[in-house]
Amino acid sequence: MSSTFGRIFRIATFGESHGGGVGVVVDGCPPRLEISAEEIQRDLDRRKPGQSRLTTPRKEADQVEILSGVFEGVTLGTPIAMLVRNADARPSSYENMKDLFRPSHADFTYEAKYGLRNWQGGGRASARETIGRVAAGAIARKILKQVAGIEVLAWVDRVQNVQAKVDSSKVTLEQIEASMVRCPDGDASQEMIERIDEARNRKDSLGGVVSCVARNVPPGLGEPVFEKLTAQLAAAMFSLPAVKGFEVGSGFAGTELYGSEHNDPFIPGKDGVPDTSSNRSGGIQGGISNGQPIEFNVAFKPTATIGVAQQTVDRDNNPTTLEAQGRHDPCVLPRAVPMVEAMTCLVLVDDWLRQCSVQVLD
Amino acid sequence: MSSTFGRIFRIATFGESHGGGVGVVVDGCPPRLEISAEEIQRDLDRRKPGQSRLTTPRKEADQVEILSGVFEGVTLGTPIAMLVRNADARPSSYENMKDLFRPSHADFTYEAKYGLRNWQGGGRASARETIGRVAAGAIARKILKQVAGIEVLAWVDRVQNVQAKVDSSKVTLEQIEASMVRCPDGDASQEMIERIDEARNRKDSLGGVVSCVARNVPPGLGEPVFEKLTAQLAAAMFSLPAVKGFEVGSGFAGTELYGSEHNDPFIPGKDGVPDTSSNRSGGIQGGISNGQPIEFNVAFKPTATIGVAQQTVDRDNNPTTLEAQGRHDPCVLPRAVPMVEAMTCLVLVDDWLRQCSVQVLD
Amino acid sequence: MSSTFGRIFRIATFGESHGGGVGVVVDGCPPRLEISAEEIQRDLDRRKPGQSRLTTPRKEADQVEILSGVFEGVTLGTPIAMLVRNADARPSSYENMKDLFRPSHADFTYEAKYGLRNWQGGGRASARETIGRVAAGAIARKILKQVAGIEVLAWVDRVQNVQAKVDSSKVTLEQIEASMVRCPDGDASQEMIERIDEARNRKDSLGGVVSCVARNVPPGLGEPVFEKLTAQLAAAMFSLPAVKGFEVGSGFAGTELYGSEHNDPFIPGKDGVPDTSSNRSGGIQGGISNGQPIEFNVAFKPTATIGVAQQTVDRDNNPTTLEAQGRHDPCVLPRAVPMVEAMTCLVLVDDWLRQCSVQVLD
Amino acid sequence: MSSTFGRIFRIATFGESHGGGVGVVVDGCPPRLEISAEEIQRDLDRRKPGQSRLTTPRKEADQVEILSGVFEGVTLGTPIAMLVRNADARPSSYENMKDLFRPSHADFTYEAKYGLRNWQGGGRASARETIGRVAAGAIARKILKQVAGIEVLAWVDRVQNVQAKVDSSKVTLEQIEASMVRCPDGDASQEMIERIDEARNRKDSLGGVVSCVARNVPPGLGEPVFEKLTAQLAAAMFSLPAVKGFEVGSGFAGTELYGSEHNDPFIPGKDGVPDTSSNRSGGIQGGISNGQPIEFNVAFKPTATIGVAQQTVDRDNNPTTLEAQGRHDPCVLPRAVPMVEAMTCLVLVDDWLRQCSVQVLD
Repeated sequence: MSSTFGRIFRIATFGESHGGGVGVVVDGCPPRLEISAEEIQRDLDRRKPGQSRLTTPRKEADQVEILSGVFEGVTLGTPIAMLVRNADARPSSYENMKDLFRPSHADFTYEAKYGLRNWQGGGRASARETIGRVAAGAIARKILKQVAGIEVLAWVDRVQNVQAKVDSSKVTLEQIEASMVRCPDGDASQEMIERIDEARNRKDSLGGVVSCVARNVPPGLGEPVFEKLTAQLAAAMFSLPAVKGFEVGSGFAGTELYGSEHNDPFIPGKDGVPDTSSNRSGGIQGGISNGQPIEFNVAFKPTATIGVAQQTVDRDNNPTTLEAQGRHDPCVLPRAVPMVEAMTCLVLVDDWLRQCSVQVLD
Repeated sequence: MSSTFGRIFRIATFGESHGGGVGVVVDGCPPRLEISAEEIQRDLDRRKPGQSRLTTPRKEADQVEILSGVFEGVTLGTPIAMLVRNADARPSSYENMKDLFRPSHADFTYEAKYGLRNWQGGGRASARETIGRVAAGAIARKILKQVAGIEVLAWVDRVQNVQAKVDSSKVTLEQIEASMVRCPDGDASQEMIERIDEARNRKDSLGGVVSCVARNVPPGLGEPVFEKLTAQLAAAMFSLPAVKGFEVGSGFAGTELYGSEHNDPFIPGKDGVPDTSSNRSGGIQGGISNGQPIEFNVAFKPTATIGVAQQTVDRDNNPTTLEAQGRHDPCVLPRAVPMVEAMTCLVLVDDWLRQCSVQVLD
Repeated sequence: MSSTFGRIFRIATFGESHGGGVGVVVDGCPPRLEISAEEIQRDLDRRKPGQSRLTTPRKEADQVEILSGVFEGVTLGTPIAMLVRNADARPSSYENMKDLFRPSHADFTYEAKYGLRNWQGGGRASARETIGRVAAGAIARKILKQVAGIEVLAWVDRVQNVQAKVDSSKVTLEQIEASMVRCPDGDASQEMIERIDEARNRKDSLGGVVSCVARNVPPGLGEPVFEKLTAQLAAAMFSLPAVKGFEVGSGFAGTELYGSEHNDPFIPGKDGVPDTSSNRSGGIQGGISNGQPIEFNVAFKPTATIGVAQQTVDRDNNPTTLEAQGRHDPCVLPRAVPMVEAMTCLVLVDDWLRQCSVQVLD
Repeated sequence: MSSTFGRIFRIATFGESHGGGVGVVVDGCPPRLEISAEEIQRDLDRRKPGQSRLTTPRKEADQVEILSGVFEGVTLGTPIAMLVRNADARPSSYENMKDLFRPSHADFTYEAKYGLRNWQGGGRASARETIGRVAAGAIARKILKQVAGIEVLAWVDRVQNVQAKVDSSKVTLEQIEASMVRCPDGDASQEMIERIDEARNRKDSLGGVVSCVARNVPPGLGEPVFEKLTAQLAAAMFSLPAVKGFEVGSGFAGTELYGSEHNDPFIPGKDGVPDTSSNRSGGIQGGISNGQPIEFNVAFKPTATIGVAQQTVDRDNNPTTLEAQGRHDPCVLPRAVPMVEAMTCLVLVDDWLRQCSVQVLD
């Protein structure tokens, strides 16, 4: 069950980092959407390894093949299966980790759960699994653009303690992509890059925060109670590897305010729809979008796999030391940006499609 | 769909703050569990209004009736329906809010989504909805205790900027319940109470952080990819009213460390199972429990409904001013504690039951 | 999981024949539907026991209370909980069956599954469980009527070997309800009644066939592959107690024809939509409605609980004899008619709501 | 949503008859099951076209590739993706059907639902879609064999009006596979083959009945209410192309008996478990298995696509005539046998896995 996401626009991902390949089946995509492998590839290219010196040197073209569900350039309404082959897999790099558990990685917990694991790389816990999500997210993104001009943008807002200053109401994809680290604040970007270079040289790793905004989301998306839009986004973000925290709008900092300081006053808006004069709610009230930009932060821990020597145990519970070889990102954040966007698009398109049936008696 | 939670141990809540009552149907509870209304009432009494001067003066006994699924003191395996009648409902208190939108409340978004709302109180967005969850959580809690001695405890860790010091490995239910504000640190508890009294007198409200620990959770619970234990807990917490943030283990602060500082080294543990010498993972690695205590924080914003005069608009988008009457908690945190525990128990019992089928070939 | 039905218009039933009551929670009902307890009661009254001498003399008013989800006469979009109290429960009638298994009843299998059962009546396997479905079905029926003039009618088509002649294109609710046995063919109705009277006098029971038609269903409802409209209806009907068979359109008999005899020729229809000159497809092709009336038959076995002496075993696997007391229907078919209609309405409304999201790019 | 089946052992199929290929993702398969592509191929070979002169001459090797979820010969517990490429696709054969609707096929209803269709073959409505099910079913079959020695066998019981005589308690796979038409009754088999040859020569088609037995199913599988084992099997069978009817045990014929004739008397059985002296229940009582063989019949209509000239309309609602070219089975039943078995195995393995959590307090 764990590999399915969404209620109506529902995706099922598959694949390990080593093996035949990774991919996704998208069920519930509306028919007659124009879509091409090229459009999907665009987002995959932002996710793929080896795109800059900041990322793992693993070389993967990550070329997507659409196996079904698209005919003569448009969606059929039937499941869209997409496959990316694993190419640059080097199981031998993992031989020395076969019988021990990498600290803070999923090695031990997979074994505890399943009684075995694919030790050739991260297996299912590898970030390669997110390829399917990014491919599906590209379709979701296009639907959102088409039905309501919804735009979803994420960027690296902090690396370690290097904090960017970004105006979320104005930031553009171009500004984000102009930075190797995907931080649209030039000064901070430069400092982040230096910090990551330094960490890589030390064979160490860094964490930080990705911020995301969704603009032009109309009021009314999301649901009360268990499937609040906040809850859906929280689950979506925590489903990404290495995520440790999630906050919407004012988040943790907002808890230090009085209610009278924190509430977003309503003011008369356009077309008879109320506006708010602040957005500490992050665009969501009572679990439902209120028409303001949806804004949230996602905390990513420093990459678990590092070259620095670490204390650990082997599968027989004996103490040992690990200096991981493999090819790993010293900082996952630049590549996490398209993943955060993809998961956000998947949540929003699902809620958009759910809302159709709510309005059936209008 | 929004009112269902869980895959195997699945609950469906119903009810608004004003109307016939609120309740829950629990499907998938294993048969032959001894359970009584009294045991369930115990958790409900920790959640109910009017239990101290810190909470809303609304007087509700919140007495639960078990309608089905329990026979001769044990569960039947069939759905357990539980009902709590609404007693002290005063729709007249809400007359003046009928045609306007409370800032940062769910009034506007419900209208945007559904085209109407039950204006008599919070309707479905009221915290009364959580009664069903707490009742179901009491059953979940008992199963967890019985199958593995799992213990789930939450407490108020911060109110506004009053931060408690709590040793999560030793804190007890008695220590928590000894404090009117459910903070086991005596000094902080006292200061929090003063802060809340002051806010109530100002007709204002406060937010803060609830912390939670789940002890004795064995390794192997949770799932890879979309239903990571972290993702399930995040969704569970964000499904509670007023939640703005969630972090597991080292959370946001952990992102400032190097990987070599952040990783939890494995050390040989008892019975051939690895232990870790730190717990920045918060008991979860790769989305699956690792046998360490599960630890997380939940940020609650200050209560939206306050007596202080606020700027807002009415349903016709005209500016107006609101001084909310009603009876509201100046700080939801003390009553949020059993809600956080209940949602945690619901997640863990569901994952426990899911894990049964994973082990079928053992 | 077993007590939930539907994807978008989703119901969860609860309750045993003896205990606090039975009921249903309806989630996903569109907002702003006018609905009253009286409208729902109308269908419940067609289902309730004691309505004629053909049914069990158990006396239950089966009065429904709407607990939530309806405000000022219209639906809120939030869960609609409905409760019917158990009134005329006589557990003492079942004392002699406490420790033995009624042949072809669910006594043994419930014990095999759950390790216990509520022996006071049928427990969860009682037909009282269908009260929640009929109540929810009444809401579904109203939506279908309102959005597309869809009309769902079922009738008793055969009792034992007494076969009615009914023109499914013209039969009306009035004709059906005019018959005590709910058979719109007067002669057959008379004969069926005599047959049932005779069976009751013999302390025996009878089975038969209920037929159903859904008119004005537009083309395009249902889904390919696993959730074909036929598959959904089959599951819906087999979820009713005592069902042994289901066939759509030409059904089993159609398998004896050649393809050239069986195919429904398309002919030009109104408004540019093709018509068919026959309806052996029963209104469904490839799992999706084709605009013709949906037609199917449901086989109900003779009631398992009979007064005639039967060979059985007790809970210790010892042979014994049973002459059931209790109060039972000699033939369930007249009361099964509203159940078949309710399940059909629940399927169709769910498919209607699903189809909304399919058309989102139109 | 329509392409997902199962709760715990959950499959998602994808693919059209023409395009990149067809396949399946199996989620929830227990870890550490030994499985090979060869074992899966065995069932696929029984399903594939061109295996005898009775089936379509379309030539497809239907060679399966396991893309993920299996490592060093055993399952990982993570999703198992399997792909079969489309090889012998000849879209040109369908050119003349591009703009008209084949009678009793899914052409019109797909267009009504989605506004377009893949006219190159049956698209998603093609029987090629069942490849994924048969592949997944082979895994399910192996688990059932391993955990409880469960054996699932189906055979062709009737073609048109040629009825076989088969002892369901003794029939073997070898007997079934020895017949080109998969009917273990030699005389009937011969007559069926002649009948199919004759239909093919007439460019016409035939229907019939597939029977199925599942042996060694323990008591307790299946669930009350909506997910009765009967309901799950009914939905599973009606999800197959061309199915018009389904009956369990005594089925439609049983409705002509009195209750006293129809009930299955309990008699003392082995190991303290009750046996029954007849099996009109078809192994299922109250929706739950009772330990007797599960037995049911599935009605398949004659193939819709035939070479005989038929009246139809084109996409503009104009009358026209169709003589289908393409390559089609004159009778789907021989190839339906492994499909019926696969769906049965998928249902049973899912119920087996569900039952694990029911027994958690034992």
